[in-house]
Amino acid sequence: LKTCTSGAPWNLQQAHAHLKASPVGHRITFHQRDTLDFLASTDTVYDVAVLAHCIWYFANPTTVIDTLKALSTRAKRICVAEYTLAPSDISTVPHVLAALAHASLECRKPQSEANIRTLLSPKRIKEKATSAGLSIVDEGTLKAPATMFDGKWEVGEVLGKEFLHDLDKVENERERAVVEALIDATRFSKESVTKVTTMDIWYAVFTKD
Amino acid sequence: LKTCTSGAPWNLQQAHAHLKASPVGHRITFHQRDTLDFLASTDTVYDVAVLAHCIWYFANPTTVIDTLKALSTRAKRICVAEYTLAPSDISTVPHVLAALAHASLECRKPQSEANIRTLLSPKRIKEKATSAGLSIVDEGTLKAPATMFDGKWEVGEVLGKEFLHDLDKVENERERAVVEALIDATRFSKESVTKVTTMDIWYAVFTKD
Repeated sequence: LKTCTSGAPWNLQQAHAHLKASPVGHRITFHQRDTLDFLASTDTVYDVAVLAHCIWYFANPTTVIDTLKALSTRAKRICVAEYTLAPSDISTVPHVLAALAHASLECRKPQSEANIRTLLSPKRIKEKATSAGLSIVDEGTLKAPATMFDGKWEVGEVLGKEFLHDLDKVENERERAVVEALIDATRFSKESVTKVTTMDIWYAVFTKD
Repeated sequence: LKTCTSGAPWNLQQAHAHLKASPVGHRITFHQRDTLDFLASTDTVYDVAVLAHCIWYFANPTTVIDTLKALSTRAKRICVAEYTLAPSDISTVPHVLAALAHASLECRKPQSEANIRTLLSPKRIKEKATSAGLSIVDEGTLKAPATMFDGKWEVGEVLGKEFLHDLDKVENERERAVVEALIDATRFSKESVTKVTTMDIWYAVFTKD
């Protein structure tokens, strides 16, 4: 069971076709369904549920807890990977700030289709897992591979003209100033590094208590 | 004319007494008044108005514009110093993140007594000055002196237990998650540096168009 998210350079359909054409393709079934609905429709117990860089796409923190809770009895292990939100090196600071800037605006939209909707740090994901009755059995951090361009893309999105279109959704001028300050800090930090790199990745394995 | 703010290691009263006891003390008059009220009560024209690290204390962005506008006809030059909000070095990242975290919570309070109420970057201060009919004649950035501990204090405040008391003022769980993410990023960045230093300082001189 894999909760999947789309991205570049391939879209979801292309990625699926590529995997289906691989030697293990016949063993893979894709279900483009809401995880909670899908789990309710079967009683299969899986060896592993993998949530790979998808936590930030969740609609809100409560849905993260509900999903972890539903998975807790249906997968023997739950593996999570998400960005650390920790600037380990000056070149990753623009990515951290861009993620925070993006989230500060997206959280004001009743509906969001953005790639950052619920920005949870490893600390908060662990808290949600505890609330869902899970225990952590392993965790660690990894450097993002050099071919993972999420940092560059995220910074580009926050500094793009389109991003500003939604600023008026933040009606209070004091609150809007904070979003603008986050955008500005992202821009300044990008200008102060020779290259933007993607922030570190946190991984964790959970099992039911 | 100097718009002054309190701080450590001395409070405002102690700082005033120290300056009054200096060789130039007899030439200094302190007016602990709201700037707009004070300016309305006299018609004196001053050589210089200095806003030294006080912009972030303003109640809201509109008051910054109103104050700059009022000063524009009453001071020949207006000098501003404020933090850059730009992480020039990994050791300053915790201060930048703490300022953003602090502002993200303070902007939700109808009344704030905190030292960060309106977080404006140099870019935004210049925009406000333009709105107030001012032109920039000089600007630059400086490294903060090693004896300026604002970075350390700000990070300490954001990571202190008392800071969390006001988190429930952010009722929406998605919006609260962003404030928590800013606090977490501040903590992670503090843990990743050997010493927190204060971010760079921006200064600018404005005159009326």
